[in-house]
Amino acid sequence: MEGVERVVRVLKPFKLASRDFHPEDTVITVNGARIGDQPVVVIGGPCSVESREQVFEAAEIVKANGGMIFRGGAFKPRTSPYSFRGMGDKGLELLAQIKSSLGLAIITEVMSPEQVPMVAGVADILQVGTRNMQNYALLDAVGRSARPVMLKRGMMSTIEELLMSAEYIMSNGNEQVILCERGIRTFETTTRNTLDVSAVPVLKELTHLPVFMDPSHASGRARYVNALSRASVAAGADGLLIEMHPHPEMALSDGAQSVSPDVYTQTIADLRRVAEAVGRSL
Amino acid sequence: MEGVERVVRVLKPFKLASRDFHPEDTVITVNGARIGDQPVVVIGGPCSVESREQVFEAAEIVKANGGMIFRGGAFKPRTSPYSFRGMGDKGLELLAQIKSSLGLAIITEVMSPEQVPMVAGVADILQVGTRNMQNYALLDAVGRSARPVMLKRGMMSTIEELLMSAEYIMSNGNEQVILCERGIRTFETTTRNTLDVSAVPVLKELTHLPVFMDPSHASGRARYVNALSRASVAAGADGLLIEMHPHPEMALSDGAQSVSPDVYTQTIADLRRVAEAVGRSL
Amino acid sequence: MEGVERVVRVLKPFKLASRDFHPEDTVITVNGARIGDQPVVVIGGPCSVESREQVFEAAEIVKANGGMIFRGGAFKPRTSPYSFRGMGDKGLELLAQIKSSLGLAIITEVMSPEQVPMVAGVADILQVGTRNMQNYALLDAVGRSARPVMLKRGMMSTIEELLMSAEYIMSNGNEQVILCERGIRTFETTTRNTLDVSAVPVLKELTHLPVFMDPSHASGRARYVNALSRASVAAGADGLLIEMHPHPEMALSDGAQSVSPDVYTQTIADLRRVAEAVGRSL
Amino acid sequence: MEGVERVVRVLKPFKLASRDFHPEDTVITVNGARIGDQPVVVIGGPCSVESREQVFEAAEIVKANGGMIFRGGAFKPRTSPYSFRGMGDKGLELLAQIKSSLGLAIITEVMSPEQVPMVAGVADILQVGTRNMQNYALLDAVGRSARPVMLKRGMMSTIEELLMSAEYIMSNGNEQVILCERGIRTFETTTRNTLDVSAVPVLKELTHLPVFMDPSHASGRARYVNALSRASVAAGADGLLIEMHPHPEMALSDGAQSVSPDVYTQTIADLRRVAEAVGRSL
Repeated sequence: MEGVERVVRVLKPFKLASRDFHPEDTVITVNGARIGDQPVVVIGGPCSVESREQVFEAAEIVKANGGMIFRGGAFKPRTSPYSFRGMGDKGLELLAQIKSSLGLAIITEVMSPEQVPMVAGVADILQVGTRNMQNYALLDAVGRSARPVMLKRGMMSTIEELLMSAEYIMSNGNEQVILCERGIRTFETTTRNTLDVSAVPVLKELTHLPVFMDPSHASGRARYVNALSRASVAAGADGLLIEMHPHPEMALSDGAQSVSPDVYTQTIADLRRVAEAVGRSL
Repeated sequence: MEGVERVVRVLKPFKLASRDFHPEDTVITVNGARIGDQPVVVIGGPCSVESREQVFEAAEIVKANGGMIFRGGAFKPRTSPYSFRGMGDKGLELLAQIKSSLGLAIITEVMSPEQVPMVAGVADILQVGTRNMQNYALLDAVGRSARPVMLKRGMMSTIEELLMSAEYIMSNGNEQVILCERGIRTFETTTRNTLDVSAVPVLKELTHLPVFMDPSHASGRARYVNALSRASVAAGADGLLIEMHPHPEMALSDGAQSVSPDVYTQTIADLRRVAEAVGRSL
Repeated sequence: MEGVERVVRVLKPFKLASRDFHPEDTVITVNGARIGDQPVVVIGGPCSVESREQVFEAAEIVKANGGMIFRGGAFKPRTSPYSFRGMGDKGLELLAQIKSSLGLAIITEVMSPEQVPMVAGVADILQVGTRNMQNYALLDAVGRSARPVMLKRGMMSTIEELLMSAEYIMSNGNEQVILCERGIRTFETTTRNTLDVSAVPVLKELTHLPVFMDPSHASGRARYVNALSRASVAAGADGLLIEMHPHPEMALSDGAQSVSPDVYTQTIADLRRVAEAVGRSL
Repeated sequence: MEGVERVVRVLKPFKLASRDFHPEDTVITVNGARIGDQPVVVIGGPCSVESREQVFEAAEIVKANGGMIFRGGAFKPRTSPYSFRGMGDKGLELLAQIKSSLGLAIITEVMSPEQVPMVAGVADILQVGTRNMQNYALLDAVGRSARPVMLKRGMMSTIEELLMSAEYIMSNGNEQVILCERGIRTFETTTRNTLDVSAVPVLKELTHLPVFMDPSHASGRARYVNALSRASVAAGADGLLIEMHPHPEMALSDGAQSVSPDVYTQTIADLRRVAEAVGRSL
């Protein structure tokens, strides 16, 4: 065609994740929490499982605030090989105890294909971390699992790439995918990353999958978590992933971005009002 | 000192803008609107002044929604010299008529030092645009004006640079500065820019100046403006700058990001509930 | 057209700057230096004019290395209003003395429309700085001047935006525009900015205007200037803008990125060999 | 210490990769090519292994141009699960035939820990792709292999993160790591990514490991590969990874960025002159 430089296809490169092919919202039920439905779901817990005492203390606070799902890392991807890389199997065991003792569902990260069966033995939701968003061998592996998957956006990935990675999981047969924006890398330095709050309305338009936000990794500063959580819920997020540590100053990883139990409790109360203001509950 | 690579000063490089030296919030009163105080202030209007009919139609809608300040550009910075660059003096005259007929205060952009007296003859608030955030001759000139200044963040400027530019204005004697985040440039392409919602809590911590958000330029898409406005108010913004056009599909500039009167009215209603949820009013 | 989402115009939004309309390279002659022609042109000098002694010392070194154009700032755009903002008129006067005593042509920055006549009284090339790349009042003003203009790319601007800003100048009648890439803002922190070396082949393809590189501002570190200068010439740049200070450790601005006279001399020697390897001279 | 906001450790967070602990350049010998030594090493070949005919045709051209190492992907990480994901085992077998028939060494990508033994059975250099730069399970696995590893920088990873990922490999016992910059993600859109040419002098200063550049992925446009290759060698790179396809217009992946045999041959000739200009050979 003369005078035309480029022709752009109408069809999006993702199908199973697209709202075009699946107009109704996907709802994923975990331990009674209906993720993607009217209530906003808050998942709290520490960055890493550090000790029996620490996780139980944290889990009691999550439960006391009405939480049904607990987060905590047993296997930790760390930029440096010399940093604390998580308790591993023992951490997984502690999470299993939380589950049986307190009745909380568990979300925890899985880092490689061969870990999937073991982690899926404890976890109710498998988390794929930001650095692994395009680890296709891992996406294929969690796609063959029966567990719901929380897919975190790469800190350097576009929204379309996030949806393409969800498509990898779904094309393996697992349609229970929760998307999570956790801050993208920009030139700004007052926050660890920049929370891309626009991702909420963009994703809600493009896909039927539930959309979570992680204000802890986005900001990297505990004191901004409350404001960013409120913004996320106001924008229409289906849920939040909040790092909370019983004693943030003693955390073995991500202490600076973990809120204290008091701030966590206050945040939940604040979010309840915002959720209601946008026609949802908590 | 041995073993120390770098020493970082405690003192911030901005003084007049810093909360350290001026702990209480600055409140700027314009036409009865108390900017920076408890109520959230919404400023609406079209990108450009295009005709008498268009601006009056837009201004009536702003007024009907309780607005006290009207926005509209007479001098337009455009990437291309061949694009519509605004009506100029005639546009300014139309804004003066809006002011006298409808009792709305006016905010409009000023593009060069020599324009300041003329624009300040009509405008209640002088706007310095994103491309001029580091146009120091202009910052000096508006700093010598008696009018409040809305300083928009450069689309790739850090929060600290924004505060340094505010400091330029204030060090010239004008302490009535309103800061406005309007989206930063990132690698994401589904939105025109990425709204840096974290800038709200960061700025509220660092400075006593009022903080506005511009969801229209940030997203570049009218359909995301409502969600981003709610997020901004929930995060603690003092006000919003929203582009609204009586007939967006006919706009001479920024039509894609201008909301219709209906969406504008709905957004105001939605924001009222969010404002109340965070202890403010609208 | 069914199945087509978007149609992209063939015509580029810039005309006068485009190679489509002006296939041959533009050559701008300044003091015998043929900018945009076969020889690579190196422009050296300090960031700021600081004293008679300092500029004369620097200018002698530039001249001894075969330079025909000397750079030095009299009016300095600084992020902070409290930093050294240049010697102003007195700096301009010192540059005029360099010109008459040593026979070097002068390039220096102009910061506002009203400064243009005064600066053009001394400067052979008017520099528009990175922060003013989209200061349209200034672009219009230098476009009405008879002096060649060096337009630096905004640290946050795309190559297309750079060409649109060149178009502003050219559409005012001044076709003697030199483009200068000086590093763009990215997430990387080991350098002050990231030199976009790809801009050289991209610009040489899109436009007939000469293309310069500024490795000093790009890296912000004197020790990387030699390598980045070599890379620029190898990529096909028409010239370089290098910050050199007789005593970098005493510089009032940008000392960290200014090379010493020795490094400057070595760099010129190294560049001569690279220029010859790509079929040019120095 | 009063008046001090932050204290920064002198020690870098990477040790084995640091030049502080290992001042001399690491040289890795593969098939007679001394990577990291005086001669610049060019590795050419297609993005993907597509057919026996295609790889042999490409390999003959590489060999005719003096190449000793051939690149070609058998397992391809693709953004979409519906794109061509490589020939897999059969591709690996074809690479083994190239090796035995033509005497070229092979570099090919490995995508998961369990693939390492199989890929290392054929490959002389294991490539870890940009999306897997922080796939720590994979880094650990290649770190336990006896094969040299080419580690590509994440498209939005810092230079320090690249070195930390190299440290993962080295701390597992494998010290034969080659670093490769391949373009970072920025706001610029005329190129697929932005080649960070400054990474060359920065890395040569910080580490003793060899530094490669990949102008093909960086630019995403075959017509810029020659200029970016010249810039890389002039900046001091130890080698290049260039995508070349016997018939780029028929490539199953990355055709737009693959150079033709003619351009490849011309580029090698051009690079020879640039290498000599900076005191090296090819």
